[in-house]
Amino acid sequence: MTDAPKHFNLSVDGGIARVSLNRPERKNPLTFESYAELRDWFRDLVYRDDIHAVVFLPNGGNFSSGGDVHDIIGPLTRMSMKELLAFTRMTGDLVKAIVNCGKPVIAAIDGVCVGAGAIIAMASDLRFATPDAKTAFLFTRVGLAGCDMGACAILPRIIGQGRAAELLYTGRSMSADEGERWGFFNRLVDANSLENEAVTFAERIVAGPNFAHMMTKTMLAQEWSMSIEQAIEAEAQAQAICMQTGDFERAYNAFVNKEKPVFEGN
Amino acid sequence: MTDAPKHFNLSVDGGIARVSLNRPERKNPLTFESYAELRDWFRDLVYRDDIHAVVFLPNGGNFSSGGDVHDIIGPLTRMSMKELLAFTRMTGDLVKAIVNCGKPVIAAIDGVCVGAGAIIAMASDLRFATPDAKTAFLFTRVGLAGCDMGACAILPRIIGQGRAAELLYTGRSMSADEGERWGFFNRLVDANSLENEAVTFAERIVAGPNFAHMMTKTMLAQEWSMSIEQAIEAEAQAQAICMQTGDFERAYNAFVNKEKPVFEGN
Amino acid sequence: MTDAPKHFNLSVDGGIARVSLNRPERKNPLTFESYAELRDWFRDLVYRDDIHAVVFLPNGGNFSSGGDVHDIIGPLTRMSMKELLAFTRMTGDLVKAIVNCGKPVIAAIDGVCVGAGAIIAMASDLRFATPDAKTAFLFTRVGLAGCDMGACAILPRIIGQGRAAELLYTGRSMSADEGERWGFFNRLVDANSLENEAVTFAERIVAGPNFAHMMTKTMLAQEWSMSIEQAIEAEAQAQAICMQTGDFERAYNAFVNKEKPVFEGN
Repeated sequence: MTDAPKHFNLSVDGGIARVSLNRPERKNPLTFESYAELRDWFRDLVYRDDIHAVVFLPNGGNFSSGGDVHDIIGPLTRMSMKELLAFTRMTGDLVKAIVNCGKPVIAAIDGVCVGAGAIIAMASDLRFATPDAKTAFLFTRVGLAGCDMGACAILPRIIGQGRAAELLYTGRSMSADEGERWGFFNRLVDANSLENEAVTFAERIVAGPNFAHMMTKTMLAQEWSMSIEQAIEAEAQAQAICMQTGDFERAYNAFVNKEKPVFEGN
Repeated sequence: MTDAPKHFNLSVDGGIARVSLNRPERKNPLTFESYAELRDWFRDLVYRDDIHAVVFLPNGGNFSSGGDVHDIIGPLTRMSMKELLAFTRMTGDLVKAIVNCGKPVIAAIDGVCVGAGAIIAMASDLRFATPDAKTAFLFTRVGLAGCDMGACAILPRIIGQGRAAELLYTGRSMSADEGERWGFFNRLVDANSLENEAVTFAERIVAGPNFAHMMTKTMLAQEWSMSIEQAIEAEAQAQAICMQTGDFERAYNAFVNKEKPVFEGN
Repeated sequence: MTDAPKHFNLSVDGGIARVSLNRPERKNPLTFESYAELRDWFRDLVYRDDIHAVVFLPNGGNFSSGGDVHDIIGPLTRMSMKELLAFTRMTGDLVKAIVNCGKPVIAAIDGVCVGAGAIIAMASDLRFATPDAKTAFLFTRVGLAGCDMGACAILPRIIGQGRAAELLYTGRSMSADEGERWGFFNRLVDANSLENEAVTFAERIVAGPNFAHMMTKTMLAQEWSMSIEQAIEAEAQAQAICMQTGDFERAYNAFVNKEKPVFEGN
């Protein structure tokens, strides 16, 4: 796993990885290369013990303009079905990798956040945004369906079925205020404090029991299509595992000694 | 498929079907006949290439008063179990037909919208309403359960489990303001502009890629009980299909030529 | 089934059971004994024909402080995996028992409502709260995961996936206002009218068709992991059953005679 990716920006500090796309002059479009490299990086993240949270940041005032029209859409119009399916599976694999990476991902949204950019925001665990964030699932604008990279399954669970349907059929922009009212954004913050607030929030998470956080993330995705009874049994097992970690004992000892617990993630 | 139904009003223009119930003097109750005819019409809609969206309108200031007490509830109290199940399956088949018709359905709600009327609104993709809309899932008032025509599954996904439980246990009216706050209504509009706003919205959808819209609608329902991984794979396949449509190429060519795309639905 | 539990307070009147925890001087922590006794009581409730709704009340200004640190967490840190799983399954069984008890449960929240207390609130059908209610899923604070007693499955369905993720990763307090905006609380009321409002609401439900309410509750949980088609078929069957109850006929006859129906729950 590289700490020097070629197609996106990465810095790691204090257990937190800061990620951003790296073509701000074009509002950070995704390319075949950045899709693949992000997918591989999030997949490898599962095995990284020095990174406990990811903050996905804007760059130059914009989050992402999505799949590039010239670099991606043009070539797609000339591909065979086999090649197309390889592409849509690769993009879906990026969402799967984010969902399954085992570390909370906080998306910090400013400016343009559209297409695959909106999908990355949606696939994150939490989302902070500036009042200027403009989020659009605009696949319909390029002649495609709203069912891209899991949007018809994931977006309704965040904002409800009716609001998701409107965004996916029209491709219209969701304002920051709407996003906050509807539960897409957890918090609105000024552009100049966005990175700081997102990183401070990540620090708070990272100071917690990171093994347990990994389990929370796993179960938030895993229980999606379970019955209530199955979900409760799955959580009984998952939480019993967490009760045998040192962090559980550390928290108890700290409480007894009237101290603040120091977690070690095991 | 008829364009001259006997038990509801229908007009088709510009790819948009306007539907309404036809007994405004009694606030548009449903009858055995209108249930069946609506079910058949929505089923056949799958195969209609000249209709790309449906606007379900009020008539005489009311959307629908639901199953008629004299025409429906009276006879039901005298039926055998076999006949009752045939009835509840027919009403459920109307919801299935709306969900599976392949065309976005916009419900435009004014006045009374209760019982099976509220269910038709719920089964639509989007909902516009006037400030006077009164929506009630009032099955409990007639001694029945809230689990009617899919309400216990669909309503929680639109407005959340707690709010749905309250409406279904009490049968109380949801105000237009509540409906907008909770995500049931996508937009509140004045009564005198309701039809116009709903049709304008439908026109915007119909001007888009209608084959892709059909796929969006299909997947919004299809992925409901899938795991995240299954949903992402299902969308990879669905979107790859859309990438081989002419509309995808038309959008790309229009972009390159700095034109507005003209979609053809194939 | 006892009407004189040792580890919680219970009174039954007019078809409504009022339940509360009984250690107000310590903000009503749960213990091994109260977990087990509540689980058994809710399980037996299925067979009680004189109780049609439950109101779960605060005591001394607080709902519950959750699993007691000394009485529960201390012993847990010294248990074997077999014992831990027996514990997490017992707590999960309490949620299953609340969900499957067949009677609507209204939680009335004041003051502290954290840990397993927040879970009891979440597992209820509806929630009323005072402006001072502080609800926290604080498992992460004691080194554990947010996936406790079904929280990763149930909470997102009440307030949405993004908001649930924030509460479960951070353990932070949800204010009463947030809870109302997000759909966790159905209503905010003053502390001095909380019990009265919750009981009045329960009376209204109990005056309804209680057999049908049982079916509504059953299906609200049962359909969770069904496809839309499966849910609609399940409701066709459930509602056909309800159409053969006396309460359905009573409602019809009352309507015809312009009277208020008197339901008997059969």
